[in-house]
Amino acid sequence: MSALVSLESIQDAAERIRGYALRTPLMVSPWEGLSLKPESLQPVGSFKIRGATTAITRLAPEARQRGIVAMSSGNHAQAVAYVARSLGIAAHIFIPDNAPARKIEATRALGAVVEVVPPEEQYSRPEEFARETGKTLIPPFENLDVISGQGTIGVEIAADDPGISTILVPVAGGGLIAGIAAAAAALLPNARVIGVEPELAADAAESLHTGALRAWAAQETARTIADGLRTASLGEMAWPHVKAYVHDILTVTEDEIEDATRRLAVEARLLAEPSGAVTTAAYLHRRRELPAGRAVAVVSGGNIDPAFLSGLVADAEKVPRNTPAGACP
Amino acid sequence: MSALVSLESIQDAAERIRGYALRTPLMVSPWEGLSLKPESLQPVGSFKIRGATTAITRLAPEARQRGIVAMSSGNHAQAVAYVARSLGIAAHIFIPDNAPARKIEATRALGAVVEVVPPEEQYSRPEEFARETGKTLIPPFENLDVISGQGTIGVEIAADDPGISTILVPVAGGGLIAGIAAAAAALLPNARVIGVEPELAADAAESLHTGALRAWAAQETARTIADGLRTASLGEMAWPHVKAYVHDILTVTEDEIEDATRRLAVEARLLAEPSGAVTTAAYLHRRRELPAGRAVAVVSGGNIDPAFLSGLVADAEKVPRNTPAGACP
Repeated sequence: MSALVSLESIQDAAERIRGYALRTPLMVSPWEGLSLKPESLQPVGSFKIRGATTAITRLAPEARQRGIVAMSSGNHAQAVAYVARSLGIAAHIFIPDNAPARKIEATRALGAVVEVVPPEEQYSRPEEFARETGKTLIPPFENLDVISGQGTIGVEIAADDPGISTILVPVAGGGLIAGIAAAAAALLPNARVIGVEPELAADAAESLHTGALRAWAAQETARTIADGLRTASLGEMAWPHVKAYVHDILTVTEDEIEDATRRLAVEARLLAEPSGAVTTAAYLHRRRELPAGRAVAVVSGGNIDPAFLSGLVADAEKVPRNTPAGACP
Repeated sequence: MSALVSLESIQDAAERIRGYALRTPLMVSPWEGLSLKPESLQPVGSFKIRGATTAITRLAPEARQRGIVAMSSGNHAQAVAYVARSLGIAAHIFIPDNAPARKIEATRALGAVVEVVPPEEQYSRPEEFARETGKTLIPPFENLDVISGQGTIGVEIAADDPGISTILVPVAGGGLIAGIAAAAAALLPNARVIGVEPELAADAAESLHTGALRAWAAQETARTIADGLRTASLGEMAWPHVKAYVHDILTVTEDEIEDATRRLAVEARLLAEPSGAVTTAAYLHRRRELPAGRAVAVVSGGNIDPAFLSGLVADAEKVPRNTPAGACP
């Protein structure tokens, strides 16, 4: 089966997320021709709230009452916990025990029951728990409701800049790009949707270029600083969307990701986590590979480690600037 | 004469700024009951683009052709240069020679002719130059067009949260709070508009509390890190608006300003310059002095010095958190 999300489903999601997710604007960037879609400004700091809200609000009343389950140490877990709290739904979140204590505390403070598990049980344990308890598992990307929720970004871009040529989207499990590309195929037929991955976690680029779904080993993808993009492969539900709707997937180097993260902060005054900065990196460093015309970079999240940010912007003076927009004393 | 800007003028400004200024959303903050109006996301990083666009687009064609003049080393100069470039108008900007080289370069790179002058001539020289050349001076706050442009923030807040109780606004020359308070008086009659100043530059608080316009000496106001709020006094055009429409002006300490700047970055993922963070500082540290109900903090600008930001967020681990929203690895 290769079901694709419909425009109707994405438009329904756009109604559902109102009041939960922020309707992010398109920001003018300091770089000619590029605008930014700052999902870093969402509650809990990433686009994940769109998919989580869509999936959770589509649950039947009985399912809501039984509660929900999610696993992740990252942005998805916090988005699920945040939405569940807003709706008064019990959330049980599994987090691998190698996650930073701070993330565990953060998810707990959002009102979720957090269960810390060994990394090797992080996928089996939640599924087992959901079966045993009748609670509904809300997966980070292997779910068409989640994909349609992420697609609301495409609806907003189409409304704000109908003449856009290129949409740059970070790629991990593929839920984000699947939804956006499905929306763009319907609403922006002349735009190209281009994924961006770290060179060190380029499984989706390899999949798209070979035509077969590839996975990379965890020890390979673990090398990138873009920790949100270390997923082994595209999800099986995202993959048909990527094949049908995505025009290309580019890769960027670690230096380019760092440079873009720094320049977003210093020149565009936008805090992005490295995973959210890969699209700006592609625009700044791969521009000759992009179509002519205006582009938008989806800045998917802003949960950057303060110590990393501190080191990064301390070097700002060394960076050559092509525009003055980040002019600070 | 104590002319006050009308709602009609502010609504006209709201039409004029479309396509130049960003229609900023109200962000949910990590602090219960507070939302943020992130003017830091504007092109060139501050609300100043609203007033500059309004004043410049209201010029007659002949005046546009003769060109415009502004003075400032800060956000207003860059906003004027940016808007002038967008409209194809020649801009001549005077900057005091004690301004950082970086700011001079930034304004020049926006296409303006920059003239560096001794600080003692920074006000007289531009006025003289404007008289001699027939160019129009666009002042940072002593201008009703500029005030009505800043007031568009009030129109947007009224549209996005008509039930808001409190609007917190940074105060320097008073153009920003004058415009917002005039809009709120018409559109949000139940909301309180409360100004915020550094304790070390509390001339406006003193003026409002004594009922007479007071000025503070430059060597006094120079002590605050909120460099955008070092203006000696409210402007004479802002003052009647403040008397008529502003409910109170609170002050915050330097430590509170630093703490709020850090927490905006680390917990709310928003880069604010210290002048833009005073309103969040008031919410976090003066909450008992605020009315009950929801508040919005106007985060007026994001042009923070990278070295200062680096030092600030390096200390993030030491700061106690009241919510987990800034959860980073």
